[in-house]
Amino acid sequence: MAKVGVILSGCGVYDGSEIHEAVISLLALNRAGADVVSMAPNMEQTVINHLTGEPAEGASRNVLEESARIVRGEIQDIAKVDTTDLDALFIPGGFGAAKNLCDFAFKGPDCDVHPEVARVIKEVVTAKKPLAAVCIAPALVAKVLGDNKLAPQVTIGTDKDTAEALTSMGATHMSCPVREFVIDEKNKIITSPAYMLAGNISEAAEGIEKTVAALLKMID
Amino acid sequence: MAKVGVILSGCGVYDGSEIHEAVISLLALNRAGADVVSMAPNMEQTVINHLTGEPAEGASRNVLEESARIVRGEIQDIAKVDTTDLDALFIPGGFGAAKNLCDFAFKGPDCDVHPEVARVIKEVVTAKKPLAAVCIAPALVAKVLGDNKLAPQVTIGTDKDTAEALTSMGATHMSCPVREFVIDEKNKIITSPAYMLAGNISEAAEGIEKTVAALLKMID
Repeated sequence: MAKVGVILSGCGVYDGSEIHEAVISLLALNRAGADVVSMAPNMEQTVINHLTGEPAEGASRNVLEESARIVRGEIQDIAKVDTTDLDALFIPGGFGAAKNLCDFAFKGPDCDVHPEVARVIKEVVTAKKPLAAVCIAPALVAKVLGDNKLAPQVTIGTDKDTAEALTSMGATHMSCPVREFVIDEKNKIITSPAYMLAGNISEAAEGIEKTVAALLKMID
Repeated sequence: MAKVGVILSGCGVYDGSEIHEAVISLLALNRAGADVVSMAPNMEQTVINHLTGEPAEGASRNVLEESARIVRGEIQDIAKVDTTDLDALFIPGGFGAAKNLCDFAFKGPDCDVHPEVARVIKEVVTAKKPLAAVCIAPALVAKVLGDNKLAPQVTIGTDKDTAEALTSMGATHMSCPVREFVIDEKNKIITSPAYMLAGNISEAAEGIEKTVAALLKMID
């Protein structure tokens, strides 16, 4: 049974993991017989009121605790994850990937990546294990791999500004429609636009389900 | 296009809607071409830390705001919902259905139901529109329909104590395996155990996908 690490970043599209993307990934992985190892950084995050879209001033939550909501408590601190136990890695999107796992949403290409998140991504990729990322999470992957001179090929869909930011971090951006995915054969990286382009949950699901299938197929 | 109301109760299995159940329902409804009208009560809720399973002492969140996380902000206060606009109703489980939509988790058969939740359920059922509920949500339906002498037939799986509580609220309980569902033809109610029995997300999904298909088929 393949063991697939899933990095979560909170619970909710505007300040955490995009919930549809995360659940669709977990379901596709389970249906394919994979064993999921969920993880998130143990850190504080800012909070967005998802009813209004506005910041909840003064509010703070813990990324690991909020991520635990998506996996019914079955999660561990990413700092404790030994990547030699993993066969592959999956990173759903949502602003949490660009606000908590790194600060790309605030700083763009000059962003910093949470050190344990950077460690896990780097260890998986350099061990030649496959990694998939969807929505805005490929920006995080581009930063880590760009910093390590691995020149990844990724997609975040078709948004020009984001694509340019990825290029300036050392990645090559490939345009990709929502129901498809892009493969970087050299680095074993699979990316798909999901809610960067999806107009509804079914569109996001189709791209994610194909991405999960391609990820599992790429495990040695 | 069928319009299906979905009543959410927060975001997370221990104090809100069970996230897998909610997302799997939303995906199945969208894939079947249904239009979803999400709703939740605008009320405060207590908070459970999903990492530890313990109460977050002193913490309070708003059910409508937390529910909004599951539907990317597309939700309305249930008090403003006109049920004549709906063709059917779906209620995912999670402790929120038994702590926020009603207080069955604390008071059992003597529980009180949030008045707007009771209104929406009663209006849909008495208008002979179909209603589906999964996991612990059938307890809520049993209370509302039992109070209205409608003698519903429902399932919460196989748990004896919960089944007895449903019986004492005026319902008939039918045992049901996780991948199946129970139909009350007279009241047009469909129920399935989901995470009352599911050992993994795929098991929950199979029962929910069948429940959604049965619900849509029952719309006049």
